[in-house]
Amino acid sequence: MSFTPTDYNTYDFANRRHIGPSPAEMTEMLAAVGAADLETLVAETVPPSIRQGKALTWAPLAEHELLARMREVAAKNRVMTSLIGQGYYGTVTPPAIQRNILENPAWYTAYTPYQPEIAQGRLEALLNYQTMVADLTGLPVANASLLDEATAAAEAMTMAERTAKSKARAFFVDRFCHPQTIAVIRTRAEPLGIEIIEDMVGNLDPSKVFGAIFQYPGSYGHVTDFTALIAKVHAAKGIAIVATDLLALCLLKEPGAMGADIAVGSSQRFGVPMGYGGPHAAFMACRDELKRAMPGRIVGVSIDSRGNKAYRLALQTREQHIRREKATSNVCTAQALLAVMASFYGVFHGPKGLRAIAERVHFLTNRLARALKAAGAKVAPAAFFDTITVEVGVGQAGILAAARAEGLNFRKIGLDRVGISLDETTDEKVLIRVLRAFGIEGVPPHRASLGFPETMLRESEYLTHPVFHMNRAESEMMRYMRRLSDRDLALDRAMIPLGSCTMKLNAAAEMMPITWPEFGSLHPFVPADQAAGYAEAIDDLTAKLCEITGYDAFSMQPNSGAQGEYAGLLTIQAYHRAQGQRERDICLIPVSAHGTNPASAQMCGMKVVVVKSAPNGDVDLDDFRAKAAAAGDRLAACMITYPSTHGVFEETVREVCQITHDHGGQVYIDGANMNALVGLVKPGEIGGDVSHLNLHKTFAIPHGGGGPGMGPIGVRAHLAPHLPGHPQTGGEGAVSAAPLGSASILLISWAYCLMMGGEGLTQATRVAILNANYIAARLAGKYPILFMGNKGRVAHECILDTRPFAEAGVTVDDIAKRLIDNGFHAPTMSWPVAGTLMVEPTESETKAEIDRFITALLAIRDEIAAVEAGEIAAADSPLRHAPHTVEDLVADWDRKYPREQGCFPPGAFRVDKYWPPVGRVDNVHGDRNLICICPPVESYADAAE
Amino acid sequence: MSFTPTDYNTYDFANRRHIGPSPAEMTEMLAAVGAADLETLVAETVPPSIRQGKALTWAPLAEHELLARMREVAAKNRVMTSLIGQGYYGTVTPPAIQRNILENPAWYTAYTPYQPEIAQGRLEALLNYQTMVADLTGLPVANASLLDEATAAAEAMTMAERTAKSKARAFFVDRFCHPQTIAVIRTRAEPLGIEIIEDMVGNLDPSKVFGAIFQYPGSYGHVTDFTALIAKVHAAKGIAIVATDLLALCLLKEPGAMGADIAVGSSQRFGVPMGYGGPHAAFMACRDELKRAMPGRIVGVSIDSRGNKAYRLALQTREQHIRREKATSNVCTAQALLAVMASFYGVFHGPKGLRAIAERVHFLTNRLARALKAAGAKVAPAAFFDTITVEVGVGQAGILAAARAEGLNFRKIGLDRVGISLDETTDEKVLIRVLRAFGIEGVPPHRASLGFPETMLRESEYLTHPVFHMNRAESEMMRYMRRLSDRDLALDRAMIPLGSCTMKLNAAAEMMPITWPEFGSLHPFVPADQAAGYAEAIDDLTAKLCEITGYDAFSMQPNSGAQGEYAGLLTIQAYHRAQGQRERDICLIPVSAHGTNPASAQMCGMKVVVVKSAPNGDVDLDDFRAKAAAAGDRLAACMITYPSTHGVFEETVREVCQITHDHGGQVYIDGANMNALVGLVKPGEIGGDVSHLNLHKTFAIPHGGGGPGMGPIGVRAHLAPHLPGHPQTGGEGAVSAAPLGSASILLISWAYCLMMGGEGLTQATRVAILNANYIAARLAGKYPILFMGNKGRVAHECILDTRPFAEAGVTVDDIAKRLIDNGFHAPTMSWPVAGTLMVEPTESETKAEIDRFITALLAIRDEIAAVEAGEIAAADSPLRHAPHTVEDLVADWDRKYPREQGCFPPGAFRVDKYWPPVGRVDNVHGDRNLICICPPVESYADAAE
Repeated sequence: MSFTPTDYNTYDFANRRHIGPSPAEMTEMLAAVGAADLETLVAETVPPSIRQGKALTWAPLAEHELLARMREVAAKNRVMTSLIGQGYYGTVTPPAIQRNILENPAWYTAYTPYQPEIAQGRLEALLNYQTMVADLTGLPVANASLLDEATAAAEAMTMAERTAKSKARAFFVDRFCHPQTIAVIRTRAEPLGIEIIEDMVGNLDPSKVFGAIFQYPGSYGHVTDFTALIAKVHAAKGIAIVATDLLALCLLKEPGAMGADIAVGSSQRFGVPMGYGGPHAAFMACRDELKRAMPGRIVGVSIDSRGNKAYRLALQTREQHIRREKATSNVCTAQALLAVMASFYGVFHGPKGLRAIAERVHFLTNRLARALKAAGAKVAPAAFFDTITVEVGVGQAGILAAARAEGLNFRKIGLDRVGISLDETTDEKVLIRVLRAFGIEGVPPHRASLGFPETMLRESEYLTHPVFHMNRAESEMMRYMRRLSDRDLALDRAMIPLGSCTMKLNAAAEMMPITWPEFGSLHPFVPADQAAGYAEAIDDLTAKLCEITGYDAFSMQPNSGAQGEYAGLLTIQAYHRAQGQRERDICLIPVSAHGTNPASAQMCGMKVVVVKSAPNGDVDLDDFRAKAAAAGDRLAACMITYPSTHGVFEETVREVCQITHDHGGQVYIDGANMNALVGLVKPGEIGGDVSHLNLHKTFAIPHGGGGPGMGPIGVRAHLAPHLPGHPQTGGEGAVSAAPLGSASILLISWAYCLMMGGEGLTQATRVAILNANYIAARLAGKYPILFMGNKGRVAHECILDTRPFAEAGVTVDDIAKRLIDNGFHAPTMSWPVAGTLMVEPTESETKAEIDRFITALLAIRDEIAAVEAGEIAAADSPLRHAPHTVEDLVADWDRKYPREQGCFPPGAFRVDKYWPPVGRVDNVHGDRNLICICPPVESYADAAE
Repeated sequence: MSFTPTDYNTYDFANRRHIGPSPAEMTEMLAAVGAADLETLVAETVPPSIRQGKALTWAPLAEHELLARMREVAAKNRVMTSLIGQGYYGTVTPPAIQRNILENPAWYTAYTPYQPEIAQGRLEALLNYQTMVADLTGLPVANASLLDEATAAAEAMTMAERTAKSKARAFFVDRFCHPQTIAVIRTRAEPLGIEIIEDMVGNLDPSKVFGAIFQYPGSYGHVTDFTALIAKVHAAKGIAIVATDLLALCLLKEPGAMGADIAVGSSQRFGVPMGYGGPHAAFMACRDELKRAMPGRIVGVSIDSRGNKAYRLALQTREQHIRREKATSNVCTAQALLAVMASFYGVFHGPKGLRAIAERVHFLTNRLARALKAAGAKVAPAAFFDTITVEVGVGQAGILAAARAEGLNFRKIGLDRVGISLDETTDEKVLIRVLRAFGIEGVPPHRASLGFPETMLRESEYLTHPVFHMNRAESEMMRYMRRLSDRDLALDRAMIPLGSCTMKLNAAAEMMPITWPEFGSLHPFVPADQAAGYAEAIDDLTAKLCEITGYDAFSMQPNSGAQGEYAGLLTIQAYHRAQGQRERDICLIPVSAHGTNPASAQMCGMKVVVVKSAPNGDVDLDDFRAKAAAAGDRLAACMITYPSTHGVFEETVREVCQITHDHGGQVYIDGANMNALVGLVKPGEIGGDVSHLNLHKTFAIPHGGGGPGMGPIGVRAHLAPHLPGHPQTGGEGAVSAAPLGSASILLISWAYCLMMGGEGLTQATRVAILNANYIAARLAGKYPILFMGNKGRVAHECILDTRPFAEAGVTVDDIAKRLIDNGFHAPTMSWPVAGTLMVEPTESETKAEIDRFITALLAIRDEIAAVEAGEIAAADSPLRHAPHTVEDLVADWDRKYPREQGCFPPGAFRVDKYWPPVGRVDNVHGDRNLICICPPVESYADAAE
């Protein structure tokens, strides 16, 4: 026997783990598609004129090499005890939550709960979150959730502007708000023409403003009763906003009790690691009258087809994807996974536990203040919760250095003060180190005394709902988390073929580092030398993203795709102003754009001009040319998506860019469809001036059931000086609370890039195109495929037209819900064209899973045909009764089709079938009877019999 | 409003997270039990005469404090690149397997799959394991699994002794076996009167032995074709055993092809971290004729009540719990979780990937050998796979030091050689460091050439079954793991009330450290200074276990409870011999003992004398006295369980110990029921001389679906000198391959002790007693409760008598299977008394979960009553048709009870119901038609329709 070595690299992450179809499967798929090979298919799909000249360069790492590299980088971060505060605090993530939520693909790979029947678990967790926020703030309605405290404050400002009866055009900002909050508010206010009055609250003249925001407790620690001030704001018909802290509210009088209209803040310190800036969930709560003006997602309670309680997203008509250029906010992906964590943190501790934590932090702070005062230090404020400041005069640098020598970070305030914020992780040992930094030995004894007037104590109860009083044994908690996750369908069970959402694999190796303390425990405002590991990782990620996009610089600050759009447009705006062209305010946006595009333009104060589509789905070039010409010197930008939201590589993209440039405008290329470009086309080379990248689509950050996301923006060199700055680094134009947005999850995208290598990323793009074309080819003739390119190819997604079935009474909803019976999440519904389904398989799905999906859709088509043929009425068909539940099987069966057909349509697993916990959810009922906190206990009786 | 601080410690792990019932629930439960308070109940349960005088002392840590302490200890271990080999190798755990198996409570909290209907997922994974082992070794039958390679080799020896037709009494051991394998074989052989002939294989005289074991490749690297030698052994009617390495077999001729009868080895290097010694799964494969003599568990294929394929444990009549004093092996808990990991490693890589890994390791080794030889070094052997030795003469210490300076550990062999074993993690960078340690700069080029003759190449195919050829994209793999875990019912979904198994909470915080590389990456034979963290942890755990048990010393070597029994009896035996009382060979064991007790005694060559039970379940004192007297000077030991296996604290325990001591015997107190003692009673104080502790019962190591476990033994001072030694540390009497057994999971028990604190552990014991008595009180009158103490109390478990229902035709099996419909794992069946159910709720279950269980049992009792009343025949009842599956619901319903009753009995969850994937499994069919490798592909078609 002679020896032939094996030619097989089992460590090839790109081709062996990430990309779904095997080489043999690809051969079969290419045959079905009718393409000789992958490169031929790509050539028929992507116009040669736009292909990049040079391949991406870097070599891939194996999974274990990646983890070794990550450990190397992690070791370069220095984890100290950060007492900087300013909106970010040490917190104890309960290990059971870390393991069963944050590290569990059933939670982190889920999509936003738009399909409520397969999302009852996370909807319940988010409803718990809303209930917790509403209770703690003392306001009746809360959302779930927002991006960070600073953007939540900015959202609250615009909400105040819309709802206040005052005619004033100014907005008051408490000087004791966190600096990053003030910065983001200023950024947001400017293009909207809102004047910001930043001052001490004592100087507020309510008659001059439509609203005011107060920080409570203040950034420097002040605990102030704003009741009288709020009354004055109200008297002047203004809206009063309180930026607050959930932990403080466990002890302190709540904003609702002071009369506040809106409360905002961050839920970070409820068990979510600081992560060098994020991700964390911000919250917003408001008075009932304002709820329809509230941005972000709201979970509500409704009923299903059997009349049983069912959760779903409420009041969606408020949202950016529906309101488009009339939108007042572009909040889309938020921070669902982190809101879920904070929600479980509340359930874990319950009101007693939270109160105990708040007291513990407060008593320690009081003890610290006493010790400092006893030693003669000047300590402020007089009334505080967890934060004090110390006047140190010229000794500031010395004290900060002494603190660092003790492994501590204090906050530098001005030139002569330091701030110290204690948190859940602080214990007596830390206190001793803090005092030692001031040259004080020992620590005064514990005393359960208050550092604020008793009048400021909270009087109302909170978290009275049974869910916050369930037995908190870990067995019970673990099972509750498991039960909720089992109700949902996520990527760990099935393909999620959502067009435009790019639900690709979130590999375990990519996810592991983010829960290492070297990455999780860093405060965003630590000195740079403590974050050298982050710097190395993010610099390398930036270099790779520049190579991928053809741009020259990146800002990592925007912490969602929509924030990226907004930041990109602001960058364009700043550029025009720097050129002395302040009048450029028109933004051309094709009618097929994502709803966030016009919403973001609107937020920048731009005038949105909508451009028509040609019948083939392309931008209507004549209309574009005409509207650009009409805009003339007022043309600020065009926003296009490439390949288009219709899933086509438009041949004319260079021309669209040229026209825009000819009129002095800048080209914004939305990165939503970047998964069809990486390695093949560089937006910066085909005419783009700026793009955001949805790292949670193309670059493997998981969707987390509706966030976190990251939307960094790449720009060409001329725009680089105008990228967002941040007060922490002395810059202006901040768009997020933290300088690098949700920094910790950048590691996921970096890991993805490192393991894929340049060629692997390019191959992923090719296979994404193959997978989509395979679906199109297999379904052609059964479902009309809209918008194919001139060679009959789709890009990385395809649009199935279901409008022909309307005549028979079958709706796109029927098809979407019937897919649940097959164990699938529905494709994107009715966007970009009403009555269609947009399917994006991504490169990560195997042929077997795609075939299962095709089998399902073909069987559904047969069921539609039966309706069309009059064999069964649409209303009697399994399509209309979908999704089928176990309750349907147990109950008497009076349907006009067999149980077997109803529950086990082709494509469904038999043994491993996913059963939705509710039947079809009634949206109208829910919006008519809006309930968005946990319903009373009786309704829970049916959960466990 | 005046301020009252909260009195609540939310970080109290013992009372807030670990112990199930809240204080309010305990009050209710005490009322139901009829006890004034917890201490009163304990006083009525535990005889005052045996209570310990002093409470346990140490203070508890919070979860975050525990993790901080663990990081501190982890930092004291030094992770170097260990090239020591000798049965332990670096390996790459695929991150998806780490996250989705090892870190997933759905896998690690499961019990041994004795109830096949709720264990189809892990049974499939274990069947894959058996198939992989059978294929790679080239033998048709394999088990799943054994404790470690050394004990597997010893088991193979005794199996050879039982099956060989040779009359010889000696056993030949290849001198090239791993030293720890030889040591464990010697330990096992001695009490059985087997002579060990350890020599070079060339000196084997087959006529003198009943069997022989060869290591392949040898411990020092030799690749030898044993075909001729095996033929000679066969000619002499002996059995030939090959201890082998799965990775080597991907390239080398397999033992089956050489004619071997039995193959054993470790699957550690298939993705399971070294963990300073374990846990890892060992394997055994054999010729078909020998299968009924094989120890350990064997998964087989059978059918369910609908005739569908179903897996279950096969041939259980071979096992120790049935054969008792006739048993030939005491293997019980093995290493299921690790076998599952290794199995998925095989599925992940498939035959091509495994072969590629094997080649990679081999080519690197060959490259190393070439470089060394080129530099003039004396390298052996001539034919090798991954291990070579280098003659270094007096320079040995210098070379070992130079290696350590390069961050490497070589193996020290004799006084003048070093051994180097490469592995999956070795890359060119490591090779450069290795050569640098020899003063050689650079490394020769890669060459795909063999370091052994081509005649030694493997010719047969392996892993041809489709499961090893499924698409290996991570999405597909993750979903496969999820589907299998969803088929099973583990602690993450429901209470597992298994008497004697103590299925308590395995807290997330306890589990986290074991996957840190500082603990996972240590080779068991590293120099002590590299394992200072482990030493600190294990020393502290030892001190705490001594305080808990009242013993003076511990051995951590036994890596299962049964191994602990065996090691404890060996220790007693060694003690007697040291006293010159070699004739003491009788072991008194009550009839109610765990089956492993007599099995272990049997393995020590002791003569088991069975002692009767009194009608109240106690040891029959008269019989005990009489049998002890009869044994006289031959009395070696008695083995008792305390509280008894009947769940009662016998008042006479001190007397039993006294009688034993009076006759010169030693008292072995089985620690299986230690969960009823911790903090209340010290076995070392009431007369015990030695006990093993099932750390996987009492001390929170998860059961892992049938292992890992740990069974360290505590002894009084006089026995301490006779505890097991280990060749690595120069001692004798090794019982496990590694000096500290499965060292890494000792961290779980240490974490548990640290977080509970002394008082928390004691409270856990009290609540375990409360929970059991609550069940007994609530069920009394409905089910006869056997064996209560003289105050009408049970200990930490209670026995429900189901024999009265036999007359109506209802069996204990019917009740157990019906509980599956309620979403529960059955209690322990028919042990210690046939026709009973033994229930142990543990302290971790909440009142709500216990009430759900009681509700279920009461409803079952009503269903039994209906049968008794003649309203329905047993054969027609839901009891007999249990468990109900979705298939039952979909099919036409011709049962004599409604669907609703069948599927949703009281206590079952409605929305979150667990559906078993198969109906009742036919055991007889499976044993008659034994199939214990993966069935052919057609049978898989029904898995996904």
